[in-house]
Amino acid sequence: MSPKALDYESLNENVKKVQYAVRGELYLRASELQKEGKKIIFTNVGNPHALGQKPLTFPRQVVALCQAPFLLYDPNVGLLFPADAIAKAKHYLSLTSGGLGAYSDSRGIPGIRKEVAEFIERRDGYPSDPELIFLTDGASKGVMQILNTIIRGEGDGVLVPVPQYPLYSAAISLFGGSLVPYYLEETANWGLDINDLRQSVAAARSKGITVRAMVIINPGNPTGQCLSEANLREILKFCYQEDLVLLGDEVYQQNIYQDERPFISARKVLMEMGPPIRKELQLVSFHSVSKGYWGECGQRGGYFEMTNIPPKTVDEIYKVASVSLSPNVPAQIFMGLMVNPLKPGDISYEQFVRESKGIIESLRRRAWMMTDGFNSCRNVVCNFTEGAMYSFPQIRLPRRAIEAAKRAGKVPDVFYCLKLLEATGISTVPGSGFGQREGVFHLRTTILPAEEEMPAIMDSYKKFNDEFMEQYEDHRGYSRM
Amino acid sequence: MSPKALDYESLNENVKKVQYAVRGELYLRASELQKEGKKIIFTNVGNPHALGQKPLTFPRQVVALCQAPFLLYDPNVGLLFPADAIAKAKHYLSLTSGGLGAYSDSRGIPGIRKEVAEFIERRDGYPSDPELIFLTDGASKGVMQILNTIIRGEGDGVLVPVPQYPLYSAAISLFGGSLVPYYLEETANWGLDINDLRQSVAAARSKGITVRAMVIINPGNPTGQCLSEANLREILKFCYQEDLVLLGDEVYQQNIYQDERPFISARKVLMEMGPPIRKELQLVSFHSVSKGYWGECGQRGGYFEMTNIPPKTVDEIYKVASVSLSPNVPAQIFMGLMVNPLKPGDISYEQFVRESKGIIESLRRRAWMMTDGFNSCRNVVCNFTEGAMYSFPQIRLPRRAIEAAKRAGKVPDVFYCLKLLEATGISTVPGSGFGQREGVFHLRTTILPAEEEMPAIMDSYKKFNDEFMEQYEDHRGYSRM
Repeated sequence: MSPKALDYESLNENVKKVQYAVRGELYLRASELQKEGKKIIFTNVGNPHALGQKPLTFPRQVVALCQAPFLLYDPNVGLLFPADAIAKAKHYLSLTSGGLGAYSDSRGIPGIRKEVAEFIERRDGYPSDPELIFLTDGASKGVMQILNTIIRGEGDGVLVPVPQYPLYSAAISLFGGSLVPYYLEETANWGLDINDLRQSVAAARSKGITVRAMVIINPGNPTGQCLSEANLREILKFCYQEDLVLLGDEVYQQNIYQDERPFISARKVLMEMGPPIRKELQLVSFHSVSKGYWGECGQRGGYFEMTNIPPKTVDEIYKVASVSLSPNVPAQIFMGLMVNPLKPGDISYEQFVRESKGIIESLRRRAWMMTDGFNSCRNVVCNFTEGAMYSFPQIRLPRRAIEAAKRAGKVPDVFYCLKLLEATGISTVPGSGFGQREGVFHLRTTILPAEEEMPAIMDSYKKFNDEFMEQYEDHRGYSRM
Repeated sequence: MSPKALDYESLNENVKKVQYAVRGELYLRASELQKEGKKIIFTNVGNPHALGQKPLTFPRQVVALCQAPFLLYDPNVGLLFPADAIAKAKHYLSLTSGGLGAYSDSRGIPGIRKEVAEFIERRDGYPSDPELIFLTDGASKGVMQILNTIIRGEGDGVLVPVPQYPLYSAAISLFGGSLVPYYLEETANWGLDINDLRQSVAAARSKGITVRAMVIINPGNPTGQCLSEANLREILKFCYQEDLVLLGDEVYQQNIYQDERPFISARKVLMEMGPPIRKELQLVSFHSVSKGYWGECGQRGGYFEMTNIPPKTVDEIYKVASVSLSPNVPAQIFMGLMVNPLKPGDISYEQFVRESKGIIESLRRRAWMMTDGFNSCRNVVCNFTEGAMYSFPQIRLPRRAIEAAKRAGKVPDVFYCLKLLEATGISTVPGSGFGQREGVFHLRTTILPAEEEMPAIMDSYKKFNDEFMEQYEDHRGYSRM
C-alpha cells in the first residue's frame, strides 16, 4: 500500500529538514527526567518567568483590566488597581475596535503601531512610519513571514551568523532556501569580519546561490556580543554593495550588561549614512516583548519595522498577514506598554523603575557570575555576555571524550550536555545546535536562573565538568587549544 | 539595476499568488471610507466583539486574574472577583510553569490539552489522547501548519469546497500546492454530492495532480449548512478509498441555529465506523475560541486533534511548532475554560448560562431575520443559515449590471458589493472571494450586527438592492434564473 499523505515517508521534505535544537534531544530528555521526578534547571530557552522572574506589575495590571473591562466602572476597582493603570487600560481599549476579543487590523492596532513609531523616533532620533510597522505574535513569526517573502527556492541564500539562533536555519529549511553561513570570531569577542563575509558570499555564488539577505542578531544569540557602530556601518555598506536585504534581529536591545558598547539599532546607523545607501538599503528590524526586563514570552508579542521596502511589497506582506487575521490583541497592548512606558510623576512610576532596574541589574550580576564560573573550570573558556541572555562557553573536549561520544553514537557536545543533564539536572543546548567551527565545542545556557541559586548551579556545573575532564583527559592533549 | 530581494518583482511567487478576499478590496475601501468619517458596518469578518457582542464575564475574570496573579492574595480580591473565578485562576496558573509570561510546551500546556481531550470524549463518546492535541494561536495557524506538512509542491492537490473560506485557497497558494475544487450544491441546501467529489478527483488526476487531502467546513463557511451524519459517513468512506487525509474545520460547532441537524464531529462518525477505516483514516480536526458564543477572536486560541497520524509525523509537527516556541498562553487558558465550562451549582454558573444562551438565541433570531430579509429582495435568493455565522445570498445580477461592471473593470459581484458599501456603509465580501459557479453571483455577510440594528440594516440593504435592480434590469432577463 502506498504511504498516506501524513505518513512520515510522504511528508513535505522541507518540514523534515527543519532542525531546532533549543527544543531538541536535550530538551526532550530533560522533560522525561522531570516526569521521573528529577529536578531540572531549564536553561535551554530564554524563558525568564519559567525560572522565577516576576512579571512587571504595572503592565499586568493594565492588561488584566483590558481583559475585564467591566471592572473599570466598578466602584471598588481603586482598591485593587492604581489610577494610572485604570487610565492606561481605558486608553488601550479606546484604541481597539471591540476590546481584546476582536480581531485587530492584520498589521496590528493602528494606535499601538503609532506608539511603536514614536518609540523608534525617541530611540534613534529619526522619524518612523507606523504604516511600515507590523505587530506580530512574537518576533519569530515576523522573521518567518519576511523569510517566506524573500525565499523563492533553494537557489536563494540567506547569510546567517554561525553560531546562530536556530530559528533562522529552521525557517530557511522550512521555506526551502539555502543557509549561507558566516562565522563569528570567538577570539575577537564574537566579532564579525567583513572580509569573511565577502568570502562567504563568493563561495555561495560559486555554487550558483543568489544571496538575497543577511541576518544579524544584535545583541548576539547565543554569543552575547554587542555590535559597534563602526561594525554596523560596515555591515550596511556590505549589504548595499552586495544588494542584500538586512534583517536586524534586535530583540535583546534592552539586555545590555556593560557600558562600553551600548545597543545601537541598525536603522539609526543607516539613517546617519548618506544617500544613496540611506534611501535604498532594504532593512527589516525585529523586536519583542519576550526579552528585556519584561520577559513576557508566553504572551507572544513582537513587531517588525520595514525601511526602504517598496509599497507594493508592503501590500503583499499585509495580504499574507491577513490570512491569519490578526496578531493576538493582549500582546499588542503589552507592546504598547513596553514602547510607551510610565513617566516620572506617574503613580506607578517608581515601582516600575524599581522592578525593571532590579531585573536588569541582577541579570548583569548573573552574566558576570556565569562568565567567571565557566572560566574557572577546567578546559572551559568563555567570552563575557555583553548583552542578550546567554552564556556560550567553549568546552575543550579531550580526545578520549570525543571517542566515547562516537562510540555512543552522539555528537561530542551532545554527549557532554547529556552527561551534564543526567549528573546535575542542568538542561543546556549543545553548541552544534547553533553551528560552530569544525572540531570546536560549546554549550549554550541562559543566564536566567535565580541569582541566589546561581552559585550552587555554577558549583554543581564545575564539579561535573572537572570530573568529566579528569575522567576523559589522557593528559596528552585536547581537541583544540 | 537588478531588483532587490524585497522589490515586488523578485518576491516569492507563491506569496504573490495568495488571495484573501475577506480583507481584500472591499475591506480596504471600507477602511478608507471609515477614515473619511462614513459609518461602516463591518460584516466582512466573523468578528462578533467588533460588532458589539459582549465577552462572557466568567472567562474574562479568570484570565484577568491569571494576568495579575498578585491579586489572588489581595484581601480585597473578593470585592471584584467571585470565588469560583479565583479558584479557576489558581487552577490554570498551577498548570503553567511560570504563569502567562512563560513559553509553554510548543504543543500547549499539558493540563489544558488533557481538558480538551476530556471535552472531546464527553462530546463524542470516544476517548481522545492529549498527546495528539496541539494548541495553536487560532485555528487558522493550525490549518496552515498541517497544510504545510502535507504539501510538497504543485503536484499535490487538496480538495476544497467551493464556495470555501479563503484561508484554504490562500494557504495552498502560499505553500505552492494545487487547490482541487468540489462544488457544494446551492439548490440542495449547499449539500455535497459524492459523485461530484469523485469527478473532481478524477479531473485533478488527469492533470497529473496527486490529491492528498480533503477539507470540509462543518458547519459551512460561507454557506452555513450542517453536514448530516450520513453525509459525513460517505465523506469518510470516500477519503479512505481515495487515500486522502481529511481536514475537518469544525470551528463553528457551537453555532447551530436549528434542531433538525445538530453538529456531529467527523471524529465521532469515524469512531463509529468499523475497521479498517476507523483505524486507518487520517483525520485532523480544528477548533477555536473565536467562534461559538465566545467570539474571542482577538485572543487567538485554537487546537487541532490528530487521529490515526503516525507518531513519527506527530514528532515532525511538534518540531515545526517548536520553531515558534509556543502558542500564546492567555488564549490557551480561554481554550481550557471553553472546553471545561462551569457546572450547575458553581457561583457563576447561572450568569454564564444566561450570557451564553442570550448570545446563541439572538444569533438564531438574527439568522432568520437575515435569511428572510434577503429572500424579500428582488433577484436575491438565500438558503437558511443552519449554522456558523454567515449568510450567503445569491444575487441574480441583470445583464446590464454585468456589462456595467465590465466597463468599470470590476468582477460583477465586486461591483455590486462596492456600490452597496458606498450607498449603505455595509461592508460585505463578494462571492467571488469564496469561489462560485461561473456566472453565478453571491455576497457573504456575517449575521453579527446587533439584533436591534438588524431591521434597519436589512431595510437599508433592500432599498439599495431593489433600486440597483431597478436601475440595471432591462426586463428581458437575468444572468441566471
